[in-house]
Amino acid sequence: MSIRIGIAGYGNLGRGVECAVRQNPDMELVAVFTRRDPKDVKVLTETAQVVRAGEAEQWKDRIDVLILCGGSATDLPKQTPEYAKLFHVVDSFDTHAKIPEHYAAVDAAAKAAGKVALISVGWDPGMFSLNRMYANAILPEGKDYTFWGKGVSQGHSDAIRRIEGVRDGKQYTIPVDSALEAVRNGEDPELTTRQKHTRECFVVLEEGADAAKVEQEIKTMPNYFADYDTTVHFISEEELKRDHSGIPHGGFVLRSGVTGWEKEHRHLIEYRLKLDSNPEFTSSVIVAYARAAYRLAAEGQSGCRTVFDIAPAYLSPKSGEELRASML
Amino acid sequence: MSIRIGIAGYGNLGRGVECAVRQNPDMELVAVFTRRDPKDVKVLTETAQVVRAGEAEQWKDRIDVLILCGGSATDLPKQTPEYAKLFHVVDSFDTHAKIPEHYAAVDAAAKAAGKVALISVGWDPGMFSLNRMYANAILPEGKDYTFWGKGVSQGHSDAIRRIEGVRDGKQYTIPVDSALEAVRNGEDPELTTRQKHTRECFVVLEEGADAAKVEQEIKTMPNYFADYDTTVHFISEEELKRDHSGIPHGGFVLRSGVTGWEKEHRHLIEYRLKLDSNPEFTSSVIVAYARAAYRLAAEGQSGCRTVFDIAPAYLSPKSGEELRASML
Repeated sequence: MSIRIGIAGYGNLGRGVECAVRQNPDMELVAVFTRRDPKDVKVLTETAQVVRAGEAEQWKDRIDVLILCGGSATDLPKQTPEYAKLFHVVDSFDTHAKIPEHYAAVDAAAKAAGKVALISVGWDPGMFSLNRMYANAILPEGKDYTFWGKGVSQGHSDAIRRIEGVRDGKQYTIPVDSALEAVRNGEDPELTTRQKHTRECFVVLEEGADAAKVEQEIKTMPNYFADYDTTVHFISEEELKRDHSGIPHGGFVLRSGVTGWEKEHRHLIEYRLKLDSNPEFTSSVIVAYARAAYRLAAEGQSGCRTVFDIAPAYLSPKSGEELRASML
Repeated sequence: MSIRIGIAGYGNLGRGVECAVRQNPDMELVAVFTRRDPKDVKVLTETAQVVRAGEAEQWKDRIDVLILCGGSATDLPKQTPEYAKLFHVVDSFDTHAKIPEHYAAVDAAAKAAGKVALISVGWDPGMFSLNRMYANAILPEGKDYTFWGKGVSQGHSDAIRRIEGVRDGKQYTIPVDSALEAVRNGEDPELTTRQKHTRECFVVLEEGADAAKVEQEIKTMPNYFADYDTTVHFISEEELKRDHSGIPHGGFVLRSGVTGWEKEHRHLIEYRLKLDSNPEFTSSVIVAYARAAYRLAAEGQSGCRTVFDIAPAYLSPKSGEELRASML
């Protein structure tokens, strides 16, 4: 019998989950919950129903794991504890600083309801966190580095679009090659914000807007751009659509550390992602962890978990025996 | 209270474990078991005792986790099940094809004795296996690649040294850059053995040996060299000692896969290790898993486990709360 998956929220992430479910033969998508009018939401999976978010409770015995695809700013802090009263859930809550708070709220709700809730699943937080953690456990004396990109930052693209005179825009975060190489060479560099990443913006102006003023406003924007070397390109709406409609991302997690009685040997652990579609990759990670949630639930576990708490084998459709024979 | 560690076998790996234990403040090395005369074995840790292997049983209440540092060919198949009757154990059994058999023997012994036994811990098998498994669970449609090196292959160095006329030698396995780049570029290449790695040998001849004959014998050696492009350099004993006495290694695990309703997006997951000392890095992984073995044992678990079965958080000295706050 398949693992019956539900999706709450049908944006880029929800659609990504839908696609990922189709790639996993032991799962099926049964319902998509939406705050819009279900008539207006067209999903790709013919056998899945589109349901008003308010009617979720009626599905509590028909869904094994509900995947929450809302945003971290306002949706998930409310939704994850709410839905964890009814379903085993997985979310991709990514406001790093608020994870402890979110964990506590979700854990209380999930424990009270006897449900399993996995939070902050994706690639950062998620696979990047796992790699930071493994590498720190293996090399206790060392230095951590995370580089993001090349990829589209939604937050920075939004910041550009809020500027007066800007019709549309896209921002790429780009790791600085020489910094990455210094880390790989074991130089353990101390890197400032500016030395780690550059930012590249592609901007479509409103008619009559002042390009120089917009460029200046972008480059000096506190928090977002002021601490970086930023390049601004003005392009047409057609060019933006043609060349910059994808949502690629990725990055590097590195740990450089020493071993030996005199700390005489140096080691580098590097994990890299190169992603054509940020939301689809995030979704693929989430769906693998939905399998884990299903299995933990079958064991009678409950409460909140993160990627740190899940034994890797739970993610795979293969049995322990198959994994040992084929992948160890 | 510290986790009390024992080491069985004091070669490169045993010494590596000793060094790694010193880097982990929650552990202490209490004893080293040896088949040699303990008088002849000098360890680095002043507070650790050197004990005859036959007297291990007397230590069963004084050691929390025993780390087995013997070889996979003949030592571990016997030692791991034997020692698992007395201790929680960790080994680095690395004969991939025989892992299922080894698992079964160790599992039976450990279960009967109520002990935890972790097998095949290190980097391959070990961290490379984990990365293969995670990447396969995340990207079910894709292709796996493993490249080893640049690094010293003990087996191939031994093979060179068995040739008549060879006094000493070292062999490096080197990944072919263009093959690695083709994988990174998402070309999903089909690679032959020859296209993935080259082999480079540094050979010291006996006096009067025939260099051309030795070179020919190396290059045509079945299994070891015949399927590879092999380079042979003849050097002096001093040069070998000066330039090739290290045991570096490393490699790359990659998975290239697709997502999207039409499989229209491509992703690359890459895990890389660059190691100055193969045995010390392996030891560092083992020691982190010894912490996990200790914790599983404290929970009352027993039986054989591999890296696939261990939730990452068990490896870290930090609490779940600390990990969520600092590394997620």
